[in-house]
Amino acid sequence: MIQRLCIIGVGLIGGSLARGLRAAGACEEIVGCSRRPETLEKALELGVIDRGELEIGRAVEGADMVVLAVPLGAMASAFRALNGHLADGAVVTDVGSAKQCVIRAANEVCDGPTPWLVPGHPIAGTEKSGVAASFAELFSERRVILTPTPETEPQAVARVRDMWQQVGAEVIEMDAGHHDQVLAATSHLPHMLAYTLVDVLGRMEEHEEIFQYAAGGFRDFTRIASSDPQMWHDICIANADDLVNTLEHFSDELKVAIEAVRAGDSETIKSLFVRAKALRDRYTEATTDSSKNAP
Amino acid sequence: MIQRLCIIGVGLIGGSLARGLRAAGACEEIVGCSRRPETLEKALELGVIDRGELEIGRAVEGADMVVLAVPLGAMASAFRALNGHLADGAVVTDVGSAKQCVIRAANEVCDGPTPWLVPGHPIAGTEKSGVAASFAELFSERRVILTPTPETEPQAVARVRDMWQQVGAEVIEMDAGHHDQVLAATSHLPHMLAYTLVDVLGRMEEHEEIFQYAAGGFRDFTRIASSDPQMWHDICIANADDLVNTLEHFSDELKVAIEAVRAGDSETIKSLFVRAKALRDRYTEATTDSSKNAP
Repeated sequence: MIQRLCIIGVGLIGGSLARGLRAAGACEEIVGCSRRPETLEKALELGVIDRGELEIGRAVEGADMVVLAVPLGAMASAFRALNGHLADGAVVTDVGSAKQCVIRAANEVCDGPTPWLVPGHPIAGTEKSGVAASFAELFSERRVILTPTPETEPQAVARVRDMWQQVGAEVIEMDAGHHDQVLAATSHLPHMLAYTLVDVLGRMEEHEEIFQYAAGGFRDFTRIASSDPQMWHDICIANADDLVNTLEHFSDELKVAIEAVRAGDSETIKSLFVRAKALRDRYTEATTDSSKNAP
Repeated sequence: MIQRLCIIGVGLIGGSLARGLRAAGACEEIVGCSRRPETLEKALELGVIDRGELEIGRAVEGADMVVLAVPLGAMASAFRALNGHLADGAVVTDVGSAKQCVIRAANEVCDGPTPWLVPGHPIAGTEKSGVAASFAELFSERRVILTPTPETEPQAVARVRDMWQQVGAEVIEMDAGHHDQVLAATSHLPHMLAYTLVDVLGRMEEHEEIFQYAAGGFRDFTRIASSDPQMWHDICIANADDLVNTLEHFSDELKVAIEAVRAGDSETIKSLFVRAKALRDRYTEATTDSSKNAP
């Protein structure tokens, strides 16, 4: 049981975790922290948090579990703000989509080692953002990746693991570097493609018409381009090396595909599509439906 | 009222049109044509068609409305097979995703002018295929683009327009060349990107793991990579010129984005994401929900 949970950044992820833990009866008190008073007011009004604080130093006081749910670009300043204010035995975890940068930020900013830090990443979310979009079931049957470092206290990992299991998630441990590689491919790359596609179409002369004749497939394909630009900017900057690698890999393969279409090379085009469909169908069968946890 | 409707190719699109017209009481009799006896048996069993024929020449006999719902690569041979078998006053339309190639195929294959041909394209579909996936509401509130040529009989256009309106579609007329440009951008390009992305990830060393950690956004993004490979191969070949143009345009913009990530150019990345999100959100508000007509 968490005595006092402190959620720093009460948006979709932070808000959903707070709601889920409350619904599971897994915490006594929830303190929310945001720079914006209106976010705290909204979170209080929705019953997501019990108390709101504008300053991180005050918010973390007396908390036994602190969750950093701020954009990656705000992690370093969050560590700076909580440094020296944590209660004895407090555990800190985060929900950032890249992990090496979080570990680096903590090491640079905090005085001494950080055995209390358990870097984490829930593989869940929608293209919506903000506390109003949060819901208790967001993490149900979702995976959460924890990337403890050699200096992370095993007991801290166990407590964070337990927290995520309370909201129905499956918890996995992985090396932070490996996490960043895998997520560059499955998440950061698709977001870059979706944003770029929508932007390319939007800059075409007949763009009004183009969007008018876009069908359901296009809508699904570009859904992730409605994601929070600040958050995704931060992810791209934070995981730039791995992202550039996968982007270049994709770009090279796309060139091969373009040449095949230009040359009318039926065999290459057909085998590309057949392979991709088989993979997608196999993957789809192996996982649960993405829409099932939507609110 | 259509007296005898002939659907050549009883798959998702052909089957859904037959179901929709029957549900609307807009046709007397439905003849289905397929090269595969098992498709006709399935369509008969599901009540989608009243009678099945394996040969196009026989299938179109006495029909006043013929719908070609075969892959683009099969259009030329379909025109060849129906040539000389059409009843007086029969109208022929198709549902192909590219339109100039259909007009070219008809002109090359048929004896003399084709005033009875109304090229068409319903902007509807799912990643599923086959008559078993068909449903009467597929075209409800969807757009259908007709691309008549100067030689198309206006009365034939009116009859095809009426047919689509009977199943709830909104019908628009457009030049075939313009259609192919617009659809290359909104439909053919995204399909190429989705197929290529899934293939790229599938060829990575850790691909099993990659698909395991893919979240809901990835699932939506790659849904169109589960589309029928043969059909999409045909579309890419048929609309190669326009597709290569948009692919190269996309590829160039992607290079700009890659360089921005590599350089840590926050301003370029952020403004790209902000523009794309604003466009996607505006477009989403202006159109109906894609999932609403799903079965």
